[in-house]
Amino acid sequence: MKAFFMNDYGEGAHPIVMQRLMETNMEHTCGYGLDAYSLRAQKLICEKCGQPQAQVHMMTGGTSANVIALSAFMRPYEAAICAPTGHINTHETGALEGRGHKILTCAASEGKVTPEGVRAVCAAHTDEHVVRPRLLYISQATELGTVYTLAELKALRAVCDECGLILFVDGARLGSALTSRGCDVTLKDLASLADCFYIGGTKNGLLFGEALVIVNPALQDGFRHMIKHGGGMMAKGRLCGVMFLAAFEHDDYFAWARHANEMADIIRGGMERGGIEFYQKTQTNQVFPVLTCAQEEALAAQFAFEHWADLPDGRVSVRFVTSWATTPQDAKLLADALEALNR
Amino acid sequence: MKAFFMNDYGEGAHPIVMQRLMETNMEHTCGYGLDAYSLRAQKLICEKCGQPQAQVHMMTGGTSANVIALSAFMRPYEAAICAPTGHINTHETGALEGRGHKILTCAASEGKVTPEGVRAVCAAHTDEHVVRPRLLYISQATELGTVYTLAELKALRAVCDECGLILFVDGARLGSALTSRGCDVTLKDLASLADCFYIGGTKNGLLFGEALVIVNPALQDGFRHMIKHGGGMMAKGRLCGVMFLAAFEHDDYFAWARHANEMADIIRGGMERGGIEFYQKTQTNQVFPVLTCAQEEALAAQFAFEHWADLPDGRVSVRFVTSWATTPQDAKLLADALEALNR
Amino acid sequence: MKAFFMNDYGEGAHPIVMQRLMETNMEHTCGYGLDAYSLRAQKLICEKCGQPQAQVHMMTGGTSANVIALSAFMRPYEAAICAPTGHINTHETGALEGRGHKILTCAASEGKVTPEGVRAVCAAHTDEHVVRPRLLYISQATELGTVYTLAELKALRAVCDECGLILFVDGARLGSALTSRGCDVTLKDLASLADCFYIGGTKNGLLFGEALVIVNPALQDGFRHMIKHGGGMMAKGRLCGVMFLAAFEHDDYFAWARHANEMADIIRGGMERGGIEFYQKTQTNQVFPVLTCAQEEALAAQFAFEHWADLPDGRVSVRFVTSWATTPQDAKLLADALEALNR
Amino acid sequence: MKAFFMNDYGEGAHPIVMQRLMETNMEHTCGYGLDAYSLRAQKLICEKCGQPQAQVHMMTGGTSANVIALSAFMRPYEAAICAPTGHINTHETGALEGRGHKILTCAASEGKVTPEGVRAVCAAHTDEHVVRPRLLYISQATELGTVYTLAELKALRAVCDECGLILFVDGARLGSALTSRGCDVTLKDLASLADCFYIGGTKNGLLFGEALVIVNPALQDGFRHMIKHGGGMMAKGRLCGVMFLAAFEHDDYFAWARHANEMADIIRGGMERGGIEFYQKTQTNQVFPVLTCAQEEALAAQFAFEHWADLPDGRVSVRFVTSWATTPQDAKLLADALEALNR
Repeated sequence: MKAFFMNDYGEGAHPIVMQRLMETNMEHTCGYGLDAYSLRAQKLICEKCGQPQAQVHMMTGGTSANVIALSAFMRPYEAAICAPTGHINTHETGALEGRGHKILTCAASEGKVTPEGVRAVCAAHTDEHVVRPRLLYISQATELGTVYTLAELKALRAVCDECGLILFVDGARLGSALTSRGCDVTLKDLASLADCFYIGGTKNGLLFGEALVIVNPALQDGFRHMIKHGGGMMAKGRLCGVMFLAAFEHDDYFAWARHANEMADIIRGGMERGGIEFYQKTQTNQVFPVLTCAQEEALAAQFAFEHWADLPDGRVSVRFVTSWATTPQDAKLLADALEALNR
Repeated sequence: MKAFFMNDYGEGAHPIVMQRLMETNMEHTCGYGLDAYSLRAQKLICEKCGQPQAQVHMMTGGTSANVIALSAFMRPYEAAICAPTGHINTHETGALEGRGHKILTCAASEGKVTPEGVRAVCAAHTDEHVVRPRLLYISQATELGTVYTLAELKALRAVCDECGLILFVDGARLGSALTSRGCDVTLKDLASLADCFYIGGTKNGLLFGEALVIVNPALQDGFRHMIKHGGGMMAKGRLCGVMFLAAFEHDDYFAWARHANEMADIIRGGMERGGIEFYQKTQTNQVFPVLTCAQEEALAAQFAFEHWADLPDGRVSVRFVTSWATTPQDAKLLADALEALNR
Repeated sequence: MKAFFMNDYGEGAHPIVMQRLMETNMEHTCGYGLDAYSLRAQKLICEKCGQPQAQVHMMTGGTSANVIALSAFMRPYEAAICAPTGHINTHETGALEGRGHKILTCAASEGKVTPEGVRAVCAAHTDEHVVRPRLLYISQATELGTVYTLAELKALRAVCDECGLILFVDGARLGSALTSRGCDVTLKDLASLADCFYIGGTKNGLLFGEALVIVNPALQDGFRHMIKHGGGMMAKGRLCGVMFLAAFEHDDYFAWARHANEMADIIRGGMERGGIEFYQKTQTNQVFPVLTCAQEEALAAQFAFEHWADLPDGRVSVRFVTSWATTPQDAKLLADALEALNR
Repeated sequence: MKAFFMNDYGEGAHPIVMQRLMETNMEHTCGYGLDAYSLRAQKLICEKCGQPQAQVHMMTGGTSANVIALSAFMRPYEAAICAPTGHINTHETGALEGRGHKILTCAASEGKVTPEGVRAVCAAHTDEHVVRPRLLYISQATELGTVYTLAELKALRAVCDECGLILFVDGARLGSALTSRGCDVTLKDLASLADCFYIGGTKNGLLFGEALVIVNPALQDGFRHMIKHGGGMMAKGRLCGVMFLAAFEHDDYFAWARHANEMADIIRGGMERGGIEFYQKTQTNQVFPVLTCAQEEALAAQFAFEHWADLPDGRVSVRFVTSWATTPQDAKLLADALEALNR
């Protein structure tokens, strides 16, 4: 069996989560997320966010969360702005367009949109022959594994206020972002700056589920209708309630994410010692080395990972992803192999 | 704790399913339903259906399955026909219209559409000022708990062929239908008559999941694109694979459904002995007695169930639902209470 | 050439309208309805409506006006209520569903929705498993040629206020309604009661065009974006401006409609004298007699009209439509023929 | 009055067209484009295209034609490819996304997409996490006034065949393209290469209207349903029939377009003599000079035209558009003014 660095959704749930599912399995509850577990999880998340008035909705996955939320917040002719690498733009099979909305890409650096980029898009879209920009979509961490600093988030909040944009944060890897080395953003910071964001469960310890937090009261009306209308409401809604409670009642969510980052740090350490170049520098649970084709092939014999990009110089970039389930042994094994590559 | 007859999705999964999830929890697999468990489950279901060429897709829930499949099969101006009580018409918050398609209701009896009803709708929709009927949606069992006989299904197949309609069967409660007393339809029968149908897992032993079987090859192209586009693709797709394997490898799926029906039979027995009228006669896991308001109130003190309808004569109908998790003790308790009501 | 009673859009435009188009044909203006003619027409219509703050938009046709307006006013899970005969429900090829919205039909009498019908639909749609009723669509005149009285409109306004509904009036035949015998509703009345309505030009003297009046300021934002987004913005927008100016600057619009009604009165007179039964009593420009098949055939030799319905007793209903272009000679000819039918 | 070069839809219709509208104005016909004029126009256009089996549909405008056709031809998860400057991408307020489809931009040169660009997009979109490219949208002439040569069109046809793409040609300015100096493409060439295209009437002599030609029989089914569903079917459909007959029965359509090009040639002549740089070289009816701000201001006193772009060096580009209605006097006046600018 190859050591597994292919993605952060390759296993089931963290054992603590599975245990809670087992313990509650035979209980009878009402459906559709109106049960006591779901209500407690929602309340707990509001508290952790410092936003008692927020709405929390349990979504079945990232694409579903993105498309239901964004289409709830925009009128038919309104558009979302994102980085060219934004998940909604590149990896959701046109789901948001499928709900009627154009996506406008803006200038970005290391996967992070810039205030100037946002401003330029808004300045170019002012009359009725073009869509009206209405929402800024960012991911924390980004699709390239990079993280917005608090100052960067504040600057984006400011440009959103200036341009009349909703700030939406895709948090599929929020745990990894908030616990990454050097990240100065807390969950409460994020909740105070975003109009809406989600806390990704699928990629950090749950079987599935993203906790969508709608902070801005103006965006809350009718959201359960939107979920059902969008095919995203689970009959056994309590599953997400039970799982998010398990993840947050002792803050294990962050411990799991921190572990994933630490495993990635071990891998980055091996790369640095071995003089392996980074395709994209990161502090989160995704690591992107630049390799020769021969090196990629050599590693592939021992490790499971993803080919990421072909570079103009003939080399390649691959992606190693760590998770709560990555063992220090496997991380060390990979680090050693990377260190040895150029010898 | 009241005995629970509120719905058939009030618990987690059958213990056999949970056990398989636990056993496989720490295995690494690829995502999005391309893992070995999902492939094995798909193959097994094709075999059980006697349709080796069919495609099987694991969907996260009934509304999601309905809306993604139906919008995949129809062009923008095409419409689905269903009974007035059809789930897509009454309980999905306009999800199918949300994907652009009108729903046309046709004459039905006991929740079952009639060939004449379908024919009449098609005859009334022939020019370009009206939608073009393209798909017949039925549920087996229906929303009223009734079951189509083999002869009825064949007659609907014939009218579909005559009118150029796709036959789609919502099988959220397929297990209960196929194992109900007097039902002469097998899974293979259904698979040979429908263009597409699904085997509901949520309401019969799984945490969630419906196995959509696309029998007609003309409808198969691009369906995984549709699932992703529709926000219905799970990262940990293997969960459905593992769960459906657990349900089908020893045909437990049908055993669980049969149990639910037997529990409902016990309840029906109590009603008959007590002279309680049926709002709708059924052989599946939903029982609809007619009660006085006082009787409803009396039962509500001891049992959890749903108020169904207010009748013109001042009486009411309520709904008792059984499942794999209903105990004979609870069923007997309810049967006795019903028997005693009119004394 | 048969005398023409097939519809009210069988000719070009009223000669006065054509003359104004010819006179202005070689003038240069800017496009998209921002020219001086369009602005003057909008202002004039606001004045005629007694609603200086209203927005007026020139739409290319009825279906386009209905679907763009209704989809602008509703969120994705919201639905429109209308009579079963409502044009959006029966003759627009699912255009509104095509923009994502379910249509709910309510009890109606002679094509007119009743307050009780509206209330009943709202009462049945209260949770997130069903759509949220948001808009009441009525037509003045209705699809059956009947007309709402002022008292009826006020009662509908009241139920809209009570239920949180937008009141939208399809005025494809508004001229005929407002000038019909016994109608006690003025344009100003209508404008003071509806949130939005339109003044149909296509069926009353123009080549095409409906003047949509958005009275409620809360519904006005971004509407030009909606028109363009919905494919309904004309490059030579000034055409509608010129045509509506021609129709309204001397109130000819109403004169043309009154003429159509008077021609219909002549036909109704012949029916009454001849003892011909009405399928639907009307005072507007549509007349629906009940005929035997032989009578229909006999009339068809001399007159162009539409077969409307097959009646259970073997007889039929046909439809005669008059317009600004119907001559008294033709109307008299038809009246005489109808009078003579039963002799 | 300033000489008018602002656009090619600033007047009404060519006098020949108006005359035909006047002559036929009081005739009675059936509606919705099923009248004899429409049928004759459709047949005539098929003949001119050398495609007797083609379907011709009269659309009310360019955006409406684009969005109805493209959404008819694609399944929900399929996408259109176009140049970054493609009209559907930049000037239709997200209309195509509003019908559910993502637009993918590809490499282009002078507004013209390249086969390599198309191929690269297709190569990057192969799995179910991304949209499936299905249609190539090009404009002839392009949004920058440039024209595809026959060889270029053939190369695009080849890449469409290779990649399984439908070739769609927006012909809003088709007349100007086909009659431009050096253009080696005929109407029959275009019709033999494209799966579907349209002949723009709005910008070349008609009040409105684009004749959509569906050459590929596989794309023809149900198109009248699509038009009605898309809000694009005119009650007085015969207007387009009458106007297109007027334009094509003596090939005036091409004469009008040639005139517009000749007027543009006069302007280009003035620029060349005056040493004015081209922002974009064209042979069609749009001319894009590079000016200083002072020059723009000076010209604006005498001529109506559009500001096009701010250039990095502080200069600007403006746009002069000619049409069938542009007089040689006005063109000469502008040419002289341009010639004199740098003196």
